Amino acid sequence: MSSRRNFLRNTALGLTAATLAPLVNKGESLHFDEFEHSKDLPVGIADWTFVNFDIPQSIQMMQRLDIHHMTIKNFHLPFNSTKEKIDEIIKQYKDGGISIYGVGVIYMKNKDEVDQAFEYAKNAGVSLIIGVPEHDQIDYVQEKVKSYNIKFAIHNHGPEDKLYPSPEIAYNLIKDKDARMGLCLDIGHAQRAGVDPAKAVLKYNKRILDMHIKDVTAAAQDGKAIEAGRGIINFPGLVRALRKIKYLGHCGIEYEKDMKDPLPGIAESVGYFKGVKDGAL
Amino acid sequence: MSSRRNFLRNTALGLTAATLAPLVNKGESLHFDEFEHSKDLPVGIADWTFVNFDIPQSIQMMQRLDIHHMTIKNFHLPFNSTKEKIDEIIKQYKDGGISIYGVGVIYMKNKDEVDQAFEYAKNAGVSLIIGVPEHDQIDYVQEKVKSYNIKFAIHNHGPEDKLYPSPEIAYNLIKDKDARMGLCLDIGHAQRAGVDPAKAVLKYNKRILDMHIKDVTAAAQDGKAIEAGRGIINFPGLVRALRKIKYLGHCGIEYEKDMKDPLPGIAESVGYFKGVKDGAL
Repeated sequence: MSSRRNFLRNTALGLTAATLAPLVNKGESLHFDEFEHSKDLPVGIADWTFVNFDIPQSIQMMQRLDIHHMTIKNFHLPFNSTKEKIDEIIKQYKDGGISIYGVGVIYMKNKDEVDQAFEYAKNAGVSLIIGVPEHDQIDYVQEKVKSYNIKFAIHNHGPEDKLYPSPEIAYNLIKDKDARMGLCLDIGHAQRAGVDPAKAVLKYNKRILDMHIKDVTAAAQDGKAIEAGRGIINFPGLVRALRKIKYLGHCGIEYEKDMKDPLPGIAESVGYFKGVKDGAL
Repeated sequence: MSSRRNFLRNTALGLTAATLAPLVNKGESLHFDEFEHSKDLPVGIADWTFVNFDIPQSIQMMQRLDIHHMTIKNFHLPFNSTKEKIDEIIKQYKDGGISIYGVGVIYMKNKDEVDQAFEYAKNAGVSLIIGVPEHDQIDYVQEKVKSYNIKFAIHNHGPEDKLYPSPEIAYNLIKDKDARMGLCLDIGHAQRAGVDPAKAVLKYNKRILDMHIKDVTAAAQDGKAIEAGRGIINFPGLVRALRKIKYLGHCGIEYEKDMKDPLPGIAESVGYFKGVKDGAL
């Protein structure tokens, strides 16, 4: 067949496709396979990512990233705020399309600080505290979890940390406590402590209440934060593990590189995590 | 066991891990599964993405994105440049860690424009032209492909295009020509024409010489460009298809949303594509 005849024939076909195409909606199959993005493992953000930005700047970045869930830090929601001030700040996020699902990370050295954290969480209307309590406060935290019906997730740091150098240590402290006590698994710090996040997920299972998602350059104390997908963390393994335990919490991106200009790095990390989720389906 | 004893025991384990960890290289297994990022399907960029930026700005963005391969457009490498000027510009990219693997997209209405394109590609030292030739220039393009030993990839547009409203039309024009003639498959335009990019990959196979990677909001003429992973394109299917045909070319991100401030959207798109690659392994 001549090029000219091909041209005429195919242009005609092209026009037919163009005429039909507006009738095709997402999910319906015409010329292409049905495809649904993964709806599980919702991506959120840990507010530490925005430590150098005010609330409107943070909201603007999350909107651009199409992220609508976050945990808030005290630099955006001060501990000593009145209930009115707390309501005003939470509303500011809500008006921007952002839902606050937890407070923290909050450090708690004594009963007063535990008391403050639970009042603060109650006033903020959240059902989750991410905390770093002194070990001798765990029993008191459990009393508060029961009386407030607010979940409490201990956040692990890396090998240099005095209190929680690995998720194992947090887990051992809460494993026999109320089921609303668990971990906020920071996968970067875990990996720096030589713990494969996927294995930690399988092991701590329903005790994982929240996640801090990041990547690191090395499984060593001096591993540095890096864009998700550029480091050494096995994200496909992590996603499969989270699906295996039927994790129902959020996956909070916590980006700690280029913190004065984080948007491209957060975007790459969010994209990578979503890509792994879709790819590993 | 008391919390205190757990603390001491686990801190000791944590320190051991920290001490051993620097000895662990990527790919070696200590506490975590071996994991290798996908090394296939190298990500590049199509220069159209940077139409609003000069060369230093473009290089800076690619460096931040950890991208090192691109195809160049004439707004950064003018057609009428002397050989010296071309060398200077290519060196500017090379010094920034960027390798130019192709020129285009170049429109060719007549023999003179075909001649110019091949001289330009030869002077730029690339082995690939991405072009939009008038259909009646295809035979002449083939002559040039043979005499210059430069590959020629026809770029498809969407259903509104007069010349190449779908990849099928380009394919039919070159399928019986020299094996160095093929397609630069633009998956966004293909999807807007109702063509599943994964199916196109399987069908056109070794004739796919380059790719323009993007996402679109709808499989319809009025589908809009959007961050990869937010639209309707089945990227996991695409990646599996590219692996099935053992595609050895580049995957050139072409980002066409927010073109005056594209970095976060490019980053998200690059991250998503890399995530799908790793997740679908």
